[in-house]
Amino acid sequence: MAARVSVDEMNRIMREEVPMAGNLGILFDTIEDGRATARLPFRDDLLRPGGTVTGPAMMAMADVVMYGAVLSRIGPVKLAVTTNLNANFLRRPKPGDLLADGRLIKCGRRLAYGEVTLVSADAPDDPVCHVTCTYSIPPEEAR
Amino acid sequence: MAARVSVDEMNRIMREEVPMAGNLGILFDTIEDGRATARLPFRDDLLRPGGTVTGPAMMAMADVVMYGAVLSRIGPVKLAVTTNLNANFLRRPKPGDLLADGRLIKCGRRLAYGEVTLVSADAPDDPVCHVTCTYSIPPEEAR
Amino acid sequence: MAARVSVDEMNRIMREEVPMAGNLGILFDTIEDGRATARLPFRDDLLRPGGTVTGPAMMAMADVVMYGAVLSRIGPVKLAVTTNLNANFLRRPKPGDLLADGRLIKCGRRLAYGEVTLVSADAPDDPVCHVTCTYSIPPEEAR
Amino acid sequence: MAARVSVDEMNRIMREEVPMAGNLGILFDTIEDGRATARLPFRDDLLRPGGTVTGPAMMAMADVVMYGAVLSRIGPVKLAVTTNLNANFLRRPKPGDLLADGRLIKCGRRLAYGEVTLVSADAPDDPVCHVTCTYSIPPEEAR
Repeated sequence: MAARVSVDEMNRIMREEVPMAGNLGILFDTIEDGRATARLPFRDDLLRPGGTVTGPAMMAMADVVMYGAVLSRIGPVKLAVTTNLNANFLRRPKPGDLLADGRLIKCGRRLAYGEVTLVSADAPDDPVCHVTCTYSIPPEEAR
Repeated sequence: MAARVSVDEMNRIMREEVPMAGNLGILFDTIEDGRATARLPFRDDLLRPGGTVTGPAMMAMADVVMYGAVLSRIGPVKLAVTTNLNANFLRRPKPGDLLADGRLIKCGRRLAYGEVTLVSADAPDDPVCHVTCTYSIPPEEAR
Repeated sequence: MAARVSVDEMNRIMREEVPMAGNLGILFDTIEDGRATARLPFRDDLLRPGGTVTGPAMMAMADVVMYGAVLSRIGPVKLAVTTNLNANFLRRPKPGDLLADGRLIKCGRRLAYGEVTLVSADAPDDPVCHVTCTYSIPPEEAR
Repeated sequence: MAARVSVDEMNRIMREEVPMAGNLGILFDTIEDGRATARLPFRDDLLRPGGTVTGPAMMAMADVVMYGAVLSRIGPVKLAVTTNLNANFLRRPKPGDLLADGRLIKCGRRLAYGEVTLVSADAPDDPVCHVTCTYSIPPEEAR
């Protein structure tokens, strides 16, 4: 099945309609049906004490990558909203770009659920953060 | 017991050392032992489709308020880091300031755990988001 | 507001319709609107290596106490089901009875969300486990 | 790398040392390094209102399967204990056997983290429950 949003469309949505994510500099790399990947280019203002990337930047990235995975399945239903996000921080990423890979585990009529794994671009085999996330999908008549 | 960091000290830490939180404009209001409250003044760039405040702004706020609650107990051990954050989004806040109230449920030698409740400043009885959060506290010799 | 189920009714539902919880021996103590408390009498078969009560017994207790808190608000809508349960184990309870105290944080038309705190009966100020839990409430026509 | 516990050893540990899990009838099927699978044979007393398997049985299964995945990596360190378990219930399983497949995402010196997916044996492509779980590993000198 083809993805129902494109990389360009998701990057435009972020830039124009989710400025917090857009301003962080997150960029989608690939979108397939039920799956999305993105990159967060490193910037000094993402650091926190200890010289590691701050957790909220990773959660913002996971949330928007899951948004991409959800829209890849249901199309640009922008009113889909997060109802739960659970983030486990597994190691402290060194300063550097982060990559996120998100996939749907279930996509029903009203709820979508999936997981996102984040790694440092220079150590792609060691997850730095693992996130599960539920989105609520509005009924047809409310979109 | 007196809090081991002050509101001024926490606001300075955010501004100078956690720029992502500082740049969002989060400001601590009160800090007591094991408890911290803060305000996120509304800005247009916190919105997402549907005209509601974006989830990552709420998670960033919860994370930093728990950081304040932890440091209120253990002092300015800035290398304390989040290991788990679980956010439940309960209703979509209208555009407007958000308030967060965080408290420790347990603070051991190596782990601190607590909860943060977020409300809209103009509807303080209806939580918009409830977060639980675990911080890892570094051993004395690693601080 | 009065609770819409009684302690006796909840204990009967557990015994007759949720045998796994009933067989563990969980007993409701009090039910008010939006709140429920229960006791899990100690039994040797609840132990795990280390001589502490096994986590799944605590999660079963939290789940059923939240069920009681939900039904206290909406009445005996038995088809309400858990969609998310997040348990944080804070200390290892010694062998002995456990007490749970659950309360609703939000109860909407379709979702209820709350928290449950578990303690050892002989150390009621030190939580052993803290749980957040979401229940899905079936629409009127499906009950 | 070879698994450091066997299926027989894990089934014996459950039967003799985690009676709650053993009494549910959970049986390990396979154990490899960092991965474990198990089956929960259906019994009437696992049902709850609505004719579906009760959530606590699924959480107990996920917890013990992750225990197997952890011990497969570190050996029979029975004092490893769950510190966090987050369960998302994705659909209501019909009466019937459940299968669980757990794998480590990270295994450090002090913490192990992984995920478990549960399916109905007769619909193995549709997850009924997805769980993430953190275990705390005791230091060498405390085992």
